[in-house]
Amino acid sequence: MTAAPLPGEDALIAALAGCLPPARHARLAIGDDAAAVEWPGGELLLITTDLLMEHVHFRLAWGDPGALGWKGLAQNLSDIAAMGGTPTHAVVALAAPPAWPAEDAVALYRGIARLAEDAGVDIIGGDTIRSAGPLTLTFTVLGRVAAGELLTRAGARPGDALYVTGALGLAAAGLRLLESGVRWPDALQPCVDAQMCPRPRLAAARALAASGLVTAMMDLSDGVATDLHRLCRMSGVGARVERDALPVPPLVNDAGGWLAARGTPADPLALALYGGEDFELLFTAPPAAEAPLRARLAPLPLARIGSMDDSADILLAHGAHAEPLPWGFTHF
Amino acid sequence: MTAAPLPGEDALIAALAGCLPPARHARLAIGDDAAAVEWPGGELLLITTDLLMEHVHFRLAWGDPGALGWKGLAQNLSDIAAMGGTPTHAVVALAAPPAWPAEDAVALYRGIARLAEDAGVDIIGGDTIRSAGPLTLTFTVLGRVAAGELLTRAGARPGDALYVTGALGLAAAGLRLLESGVRWPDALQPCVDAQMCPRPRLAAARALAASGLVTAMMDLSDGVATDLHRLCRMSGVGARVERDALPVPPLVNDAGGWLAARGTPADPLALALYGGEDFELLFTAPPAAEAPLRARLAPLPLARIGSMDDSADILLAHGAHAEPLPWGFTHF
Repeated sequence: MTAAPLPGEDALIAALAGCLPPARHARLAIGDDAAAVEWPGGELLLITTDLLMEHVHFRLAWGDPGALGWKGLAQNLSDIAAMGGTPTHAVVALAAPPAWPAEDAVALYRGIARLAEDAGVDIIGGDTIRSAGPLTLTFTVLGRVAAGELLTRAGARPGDALYVTGALGLAAAGLRLLESGVRWPDALQPCVDAQMCPRPRLAAARALAASGLVTAMMDLSDGVATDLHRLCRMSGVGARVERDALPVPPLVNDAGGWLAARGTPADPLALALYGGEDFELLFTAPPAAEAPLRARLAPLPLARIGSMDDSADILLAHGAHAEPLPWGFTHF
Repeated sequence: MTAAPLPGEDALIAALAGCLPPARHARLAIGDDAAAVEWPGGELLLITTDLLMEHVHFRLAWGDPGALGWKGLAQNLSDIAAMGGTPTHAVVALAAPPAWPAEDAVALYRGIARLAEDAGVDIIGGDTIRSAGPLTLTFTVLGRVAAGELLTRAGARPGDALYVTGALGLAAAGLRLLESGVRWPDALQPCVDAQMCPRPRLAAARALAASGLVTAMMDLSDGVATDLHRLCRMSGVGARVERDALPVPPLVNDAGGWLAARGTPADPLALALYGGEDFELLFTAPPAAEAPLRARLAPLPLARIGSMDDSADILLAHGAHAEPLPWGFTHF
């Protein structure tokens, strides 16, 4: 059980949530990837919302407004997936700066539409205003899940193994490349693509939820370090992460090398642990579940990166040596 | 049928909606006060979202952040009510400027909580970030309605009478008082209260929907002139509004007089027609339904302000004289 005070954004959210009366008609309210509401018919309705703002989450100078629309929707679809759910409907609120061309607004919506079609999600409403400041976009996504298949951040047990899908650090490496202000080699483009057009793990999340083998799950939006702290806090467990088990692909090392050669070093391990926006799935399950889970997810790679325990600590281990894994970057 | 091109915000929304594939699993998508989705269990799920931004919709100098939270939620509850629905759940996304005190964020959430409790709505989630510009708030509200009681902007028929609940122009008068920069007389405070803490017509809207007598309904967010254009366009009818039937209360005249004496004249009729943010209900019904509708709404005042016809015009009549009622102010 981690008893340390909550940092930054999490502390403010907790303070604000404390102003609200307890939800009377909700299975799960503030504090997870999405909220869950019992709805007539026996399923749970899931809802999640994210506000994206220019200069905080993205820069228009990065180009393609379609990628921005895609990414904004993607990160909300990922939140629904992280609960074990299927996203169904979305609404989009846009505050567009006066000087922003209408063609770019159209391109943005085309990007939203592309992912919505891919994912089988209907965009059913929104709001559009002129911004008095930065371009701002709020996505709210609805989804559904059978009550017995809901996965939350609570539920991890001492002895469970800790898993992550796919690869870590690509999106963070892509962000550094975009911010470098220099044109990167084509070979590193997949990092930038991971940053700008993430593909939420919708099918994998559903497979994991339907397996009945997963004890806790969330998506990786702020990096393993920060997100694991959140999972441990909600589950009331500690964790030990094996550094060498982290799935850091060679491209992240290549990007780190290229950046270092240009005077802006980026440690691949830090990108993987603290970079965020990978939108991979972080989950726990008993070790015995590993083979069937691997089979269900194949060909998607699955890395067993550590284990849960009954300590108050979250440790990063390298061989016999282990040190505390600090809470990472937040927007506050 | 009004065939004129759409102005400003409505034109951009139509262009952006045109980028999206048609919704496959929605009863009603973009273009009404809220979207409606068929959901397991036979009811319709309603969803609406609004983005509120400092300098566009409000000024922090007006004081009380609690009122801002109240109003942001109120206008979304009003959208659900306008469909005949009952609001049930909401999520709130907040972008808070770095210099904005945390106590003000708490006060804002207390204002949200007050109205949420009053209305029986659970606040079940949200997002909180540091803003790179103005204070920004996005509310998304869910509601439900029996499929047979859904009311939309389409459905008004030639021969229907046009009604509005309550009074018009108070909120617009309050906005002018707030913007005057001078302390207004206490007697005019109800105008400011109407601007800052509107009370959505939740019970009235449900009573109207349950009556089975209403043919089309919407809430008044942008003023009768603009909103009636929207209703006529969706219903494919024309309308004639009787100027002397508009429920403009004496306080709006008093506020107009006080403002004029200070060199900032505000025509009470213009406040009522173009002011917006009254969050009253604008609806149509056959003339024979008037007595039962009045009885259902009592003691809430109901004004019959005109009638619908099969023309292409929206007219403002004063005795025998009638002139076109232009589309009013939009944020674009």
